[in-house]
Amino acid sequence: MARPTPLSGFPEWLPEGRLVEQHVLDVLRRTFELHGFVGIETRAVEPLDQLLRKGETSKEVYVLGRLQAEAGAAPDRAGTLGLHFDLTVPFARYVLENAGHLAFPFRRYQIQKAWRGERPQDGRFREFVQADIDVVGAGTLPYHYEVELPLVMAEALGALRDIGVPPVRVLVNNRKVAEGFYRGIGLTDVDAVLRSIDKLDKIGADAVAGLLVAEAGASDVQARACLELAAISGSDESVIDHVRTLAVDHGAAHELLDEGLEELGALIRAAALRAPGVVVADLKIARGLDYYTGSVYETVLVGHEQLGSICSGGRYDTLASDGANTYPGVGLSIGVSRLVSRLISRGLVTTTRSVPSAVLVAVSNEDDRGRSDAVAAALRSRGIPVEVAPSAAKFGKQIRHADRRGIPFVWFVGEDEQAADQVKDIRSGEQVEADAGTWTPDDSDLWPRVVPA
Amino acid sequence: MARPTPLSGFPEWLPEGRLVEQHVLDVLRRTFELHGFVGIETRAVEPLDQLLRKGETSKEVYVLGRLQAEAGAAPDRAGTLGLHFDLTVPFARYVLENAGHLAFPFRRYQIQKAWRGERPQDGRFREFVQADIDVVGAGTLPYHYEVELPLVMAEALGALRDIGVPPVRVLVNNRKVAEGFYRGIGLTDVDAVLRSIDKLDKIGADAVAGLLVAEAGASDVQARACLELAAISGSDESVIDHVRTLAVDHGAAHELLDEGLEELGALIRAAALRAPGVVVADLKIARGLDYYTGSVYETVLVGHEQLGSICSGGRYDTLASDGANTYPGVGLSIGVSRLVSRLISRGLVTTTRSVPSAVLVAVSNEDDRGRSDAVAAALRSRGIPVEVAPSAAKFGKQIRHADRRGIPFVWFVGEDEQAADQVKDIRSGEQVEADAGTWTPDDSDLWPRVVPA
Repeated sequence: MARPTPLSGFPEWLPEGRLVEQHVLDVLRRTFELHGFVGIETRAVEPLDQLLRKGETSKEVYVLGRLQAEAGAAPDRAGTLGLHFDLTVPFARYVLENAGHLAFPFRRYQIQKAWRGERPQDGRFREFVQADIDVVGAGTLPYHYEVELPLVMAEALGALRDIGVPPVRVLVNNRKVAEGFYRGIGLTDVDAVLRSIDKLDKIGADAVAGLLVAEAGASDVQARACLELAAISGSDESVIDHVRTLAVDHGAAHELLDEGLEELGALIRAAALRAPGVVVADLKIARGLDYYTGSVYETVLVGHEQLGSICSGGRYDTLASDGANTYPGVGLSIGVSRLVSRLISRGLVTTTRSVPSAVLVAVSNEDDRGRSDAVAAALRSRGIPVEVAPSAAKFGKQIRHADRRGIPFVWFVGEDEQAADQVKDIRSGEQVEADAGTWTPDDSDLWPRVVPA
Repeated sequence: MARPTPLSGFPEWLPEGRLVEQHVLDVLRRTFELHGFVGIETRAVEPLDQLLRKGETSKEVYVLGRLQAEAGAAPDRAGTLGLHFDLTVPFARYVLENAGHLAFPFRRYQIQKAWRGERPQDGRFREFVQADIDVVGAGTLPYHYEVELPLVMAEALGALRDIGVPPVRVLVNNRKVAEGFYRGIGLTDVDAVLRSIDKLDKIGADAVAGLLVAEAGASDVQARACLELAAISGSDESVIDHVRTLAVDHGAAHELLDEGLEELGALIRAAALRAPGVVVADLKIARGLDYYTGSVYETVLVGHEQLGSICSGGRYDTLASDGANTYPGVGLSIGVSRLVSRLISRGLVTTTRSVPSAVLVAVSNEDDRGRSDAVAAALRSRGIPVEVAPSAAKFGKQIRHADRRGIPFVWFVGEDEQAADQVKDIRSGEQVEADAGTWTPDDSDLWPRVVPA
């Protein structure tokens, strides 16, 4: 074949990049597990009719076909499979399918790829990795999980500060506040209002005002009130008072508004204690998906706000329901590919080497390869990653082999059973006698590390 | 939606099953990294024309379509994407695409899903996880990698004996032996002979003899000679003598045969030293894929031979070539889903609990949830996985919540700042005073463990 070229929207990393991504995934997984979330995976495909329950996403779904299907045959939607475009819809299906075997409230994390056939852009891919946490209850789910989950994500992302990930800001809002306010000022097509407000960052306030009038049935005064609400943000409880004042000014009284403000206030208070300075109430956060019913979340990397949200989610009351039972949930999803691609493309992080090996065991001649293999096995049995030189080339060439990969140590096997082995730190040039049964590298050299660039 | 049902061929595990799979993947990854393999991932899709370079697999490929594609439009093979059906073809493409950025010989592992549209059977899925290791060289690749790689896999699978995975037997052969022998006895359509021999286990010797005559142009005598070769197996070097004798008997002299026997002998000798009793030369191992050019490998679980191979591969000289440069390689692939499904369906393994949490922190009333959260944070900061009770129910109910999940400890926060906390081992009922800043569970209770059933 000719030299292949990359496919737009399907990112692949070189080994160093994959080390970064794997480290990010390891840190996320550890944080999730420390918080008691159990990992699951779901299949990559769902029946197309399930994926299309949300009309808005229909254009983004990749549909699976069979190579031998008759050309021109009418597509059979019921039997057709599509690749999942997120992990929330498959998780809701998994909960319904396995409800009899799960203990509720069920805390799970899920780290998998998802696919969307949309036009690739910076940080927006056709294939991407997501890392989700959700808690679902059977029938009911207490509000305190809406406080807990964004703080778990803040902790997980905070644990990546060490490697050069910028600080994050978690933006929170509550659908009940928005809906209560809209209804309180006399707007009834809440979904239309939310869809318009969701475009604020993209098209600006004046255009959104126009949309509110044209598509949500708002008067100019009502549209301006919605925009005033969306303009409110802050990281302490004054934000709640601010909304209350605005509501009173506009004569907007609604019990949903009160309930939402109480919830939002509780989240702000808890966040101020547990993750000071990270969580900001931002009343313009709407989230496009229409299944959210309480808290909604978005997360930006400070200094990289233009990248968009790297961790979003919210509370959903009716996503998983089989008629007889309903499983309300709350969850957030980290856009791992978006985050990692930014770390790599902006050179924010680097790795101490490109391969796992801490040691290259040299080979003095091919007939003695077995002795080098034995040294490697002895080191590995004590948890030290090792590879053996590919050929019995001159030692200078073997050292260059290690150097090109960033392997810090080269091991020379003694010329006979009596002669001691030696190990050379090829960075300093220091060479010392060593025994494969006891020698250990510094902790900082044992495995490749991901560090700020 | 109605309660959904599973899709045949797309396995999903309950949380306990996923703990088993994740443990298997963690052990494989660690072994691969100790041997200096670096992890990469490739995209799930490849251009269809690349996937169809091997005609045999065409019927198994899932093709991606766009929902809005015109019904009846002629499929465009060049621009069409399909889901990869293994990790070797994508890896070969990755090597060609990134050759300028890789250091050769390049050692990589790759753990990902693959998809095949074939009829599901026991241990044969439409979506499945593979764990591959390969080494590729630029231009050349020394034979010793053909010895090393199956031994790495034997070590990786051996590291799973602790959790109840049966011992494995690695069956090896060498294409050069087979090809040299066939040519030596006057058969020239080597691929046809291999395809026939590959069916031996399925259809038996007599039917294969018929195939050899009908499709590989063999005489009855030649067909019997091929079957005699295929019947040879053994775990020491006598197997080599056995093949030589057979070749002499049939007047089959060929330099490829000699080269192949020398290689196979070296592998048997090294394996006897490094993994005694695990590797068996089995001259009937053919492997269906036509890109193998040297060693070929299959691996069976002892006592579960009917499951088929759980780890296969071989040496390939020309899979990755862009015309100017060729990258010969050798690799093996573990069928993780096949292995894990057997472990689960036969009840060979179990887990000490179904969630990560070692501790459930009880909540005495909702106003005090913050104090329970603080205890949980203190424990987590020392690496102990913890969750907080979902509600301030009666303590008996909170203990049952832990018990249902197998969480061994329940933590009771002191009634006020002066009263000491207490922690209860709910298995023994023992309850002691404890400080969240110092208390630690036994190592065996810290994380859920996967153990023999």
